[in-house]
Amino acid sequence: MSAYEALRPLFEPSAIAVVGVSRQGKQGAVFLQGLLDPGFRGEVYVVHPSATEIMGVRAYPSVRALPKRPDLAILVLPAEPAIEVVRECAEAGVPAVVLFTAGFNELGTPEGEERARRLLAAAGGRTRLVGPNCMGVYNAKLRIAMFPGMPSTPGPIGFVSQSGSLVQFVVRAANERGLGIGKAVSIGNQLDLTASDFLEYLSEDPETEVIAAYLEGLPDGRRFARVLRRAASRKRVVIWKAGRAQAGARAARSHTGQLAGAFAIWRGLAQQAGVALVRDLEELVDTLAVADAVRGLGPLGRRLAIVTGPGGPAVSASDACEESGLELATLGEGTTAELRRLVAAAGTSVRNPIDVGMVLEGAAEVYGRALELALSDPGVDAALVIGGDRREPGRFAEMLQETRARFRKPVLYATSFPLASGDHGPELQRAGVATAPSGERLLRAYGRLLGTLTPR
Amino acid sequence: MSAYEALRPLFEPSAIAVVGVSRQGKQGAVFLQGLLDPGFRGEVYVVHPSATEIMGVRAYPSVRALPKRPDLAILVLPAEPAIEVVRECAEAGVPAVVLFTAGFNELGTPEGEERARRLLAAAGGRTRLVGPNCMGVYNAKLRIAMFPGMPSTPGPIGFVSQSGSLVQFVVRAANERGLGIGKAVSIGNQLDLTASDFLEYLSEDPETEVIAAYLEGLPDGRRFARVLRRAASRKRVVIWKAGRAQAGARAARSHTGQLAGAFAIWRGLAQQAGVALVRDLEELVDTLAVADAVRGLGPLGRRLAIVTGPGGPAVSASDACEESGLELATLGEGTTAELRRLVAAAGTSVRNPIDVGMVLEGAAEVYGRALELALSDPGVDAALVIGGDRREPGRFAEMLQETRARFRKPVLYATSFPLASGDHGPELQRAGVATAPSGERLLRAYGRLLGTLTPR
Repeated sequence: MSAYEALRPLFEPSAIAVVGVSRQGKQGAVFLQGLLDPGFRGEVYVVHPSATEIMGVRAYPSVRALPKRPDLAILVLPAEPAIEVVRECAEAGVPAVVLFTAGFNELGTPEGEERARRLLAAAGGRTRLVGPNCMGVYNAKLRIAMFPGMPSTPGPIGFVSQSGSLVQFVVRAANERGLGIGKAVSIGNQLDLTASDFLEYLSEDPETEVIAAYLEGLPDGRRFARVLRRAASRKRVVIWKAGRAQAGARAARSHTGQLAGAFAIWRGLAQQAGVALVRDLEELVDTLAVADAVRGLGPLGRRLAIVTGPGGPAVSASDACEESGLELATLGEGTTAELRRLVAAAGTSVRNPIDVGMVLEGAAEVYGRALELALSDPGVDAALVIGGDRREPGRFAEMLQETRARFRKPVLYATSFPLASGDHGPELQRAGVATAPSGERLLRAYGRLLGTLTPR
Repeated sequence: MSAYEALRPLFEPSAIAVVGVSRQGKQGAVFLQGLLDPGFRGEVYVVHPSATEIMGVRAYPSVRALPKRPDLAILVLPAEPAIEVVRECAEAGVPAVVLFTAGFNELGTPEGEERARRLLAAAGGRTRLVGPNCMGVYNAKLRIAMFPGMPSTPGPIGFVSQSGSLVQFVVRAANERGLGIGKAVSIGNQLDLTASDFLEYLSEDPETEVIAAYLEGLPDGRRFARVLRRAASRKRVVIWKAGRAQAGARAARSHTGQLAGAFAIWRGLAQQAGVALVRDLEELVDTLAVADAVRGLGPLGRRLAIVTGPGGPAVSASDACEESGLELATLGEGTTAELRRLVAAAGTSVRNPIDVGMVLEGAAEVYGRALELALSDPGVDAALVIGGDRREPGRFAEMLQETRARFRKPVLYATSFPLASGDHGPELQRAGVATAPSGERLLRAYGRLLGTLTPR
């Protein structure tokens, strides 16, 4: 069975049992609510020793007593009872169990380690475990969430996270920017299923086109390196490696019980495999915004054109360009001549950055023509647009979408300056224009993706 | 006359003349609107050869014909007529002129240079020039803006900018975060008044407590170094130096006609003088947020405590801590013992980062007690709080304000995670709690400010 087939029941269950929600729905309620709120497209059961119904869901006294074998059981129980229910799931042939439960190897104590061993033995290799100390899976299309109130917008991004809260934060932050996380998993202590397993699954999943990961440490470094290389040869992969510094590594140890490993090794591996590395949530989402917008395009080129109205932000973007391993493209003479016809002489520039000046009338047209000229130039691989039209942001956004559709080159757009059409950010992102609150952030994100999807 | 007294008429004019607004208010209208919209607390005149009134403001045929000598004239004229009006202002004893006009030395042509020389000669040292190729001055208290629609919230931050559009962006971005820019100036080509003059003015201005600058290049490097050292010994100074890389330096050359100079020299100077360096607008505003919140406190210490609920963001913040030259504080045994009483055993940590776990009930109390314990520890110089209470964000914000008021130690708060009380950001900032969308950004900002206000 391929990695993809093995993990399908976990990501695409037709029935889920939640075990351990208390009668008043206080303990563990969020997990049940995370299925009920968005409207999970399969069956949900609750297992409870005595209740017949919890939060409107029919309850059964045991996993064995369920009317149908669930594909997935979510356990919100203290450590010892959790071990027992895992044994029961293994006996009943439940293929996957999510363990919210903490108190295992992340404690860093002999008792914690011993409990972890008993947990693995209870699963007996028949039931695959996610966690323990995790939040489980998210599937936007099937409407499986791990917290109430998470958005359910499907999309091409798959996310593997060693932090549960970060799944929620990343899904939300991405959603606000017009990016869809289709599938996500919080992997916790990786006692059984590891980041490598999920990476392998996502690299084979036809619905996933871009892979993101938040990782603290790995129990199976060599296998991960192998799986990562294969994944990165097929899809763009963006990794947020935490526990880089000693302080972070110590924090990771008590967070998910992982040894963080030397960051230099990660750098080397990422370089070799063609993987983008980021260091925080914003960098992750920015990099996903660019990766999302350039889907279907091949390796990225480093020669950028900048089309701007405001001067200072363009100077700063030029710095960011070079500091991110990119170049300001040298425009062809024909391009420069056409631009000279387009813009006024003073307070503008027809060299790159192309400064159209403080355009007040017809900004969308002037910017649009300048962008078209830049993208038509064979010496330009991609373009960044800064500024916009604050009086007619809709027309400006249309111009960007139309221009992007006509050229098979990446278009980046800095949305948040007050001159710009900030509200159209998510719409532009969905139309393949990478958006972020500043040109510098977009260029750094683009720079990180240089070398991804390059045949090696 | 001190630098402060010399530039007071420019920043605190009682009468302003705007010269060059066309009859229909098309050319140059924004500058007049920038005074009318916020309601400038002085007199405004318009100078026009034939009109008697423009945009509801009485017009006079010449500067000489004005009923009162203005302290400031704003020129929105083409280059040649601008030179003539500067001569007229000098003869009439107008102390300061702002020149929006471009087409001088920033062109990089012999004609541009020659025009610049004639402009300086026309001013004759009697009238001080801001620009040319600039947007002039901003004074929130007196309600002088350079663009319509800029906020007019007074505050302790003074801003010197070599980009006009960036004054607008920075004032707005700061305002949205609860930070007040009291005075700002767009300095353009620095033909007469330079960044050094404005820095000197702001360092003596009693209303300014924190100084920010966006700089591309300087015509008077040695003097600037001297002025900067003196300014930084009295107030916190944050500099965004653009034109760091070759691409940015080239862009700066055509933007404001400045040679950018080697960035290594800037780094050395900043280090020596105790000045924070930033590389984009976000870093500038983040750093100002921390500088604003720690006003009245002395040199900053490097031992940080992190109080968190979500685990992943705290691991990442720990990385940012160390990568920013800070340390995770080692908590005293008494502190650890008290914390152990406060939080549950599993899924939490009483070491630093202090992880209070996924608190659902009474988050404000649990977080508040943990923060209090951290700040009471003599081994802790400052604290970062991550997460919050999404059900009672008001109570959480109150707790942060109260705790900040009781300790003379910096408190940083990451606002934007969905769990947190994001809407209270500006209110918290005004109460002395530095806020930003992530803990990593706050720690990097704090790290940049290490060494500021240190006696040297």
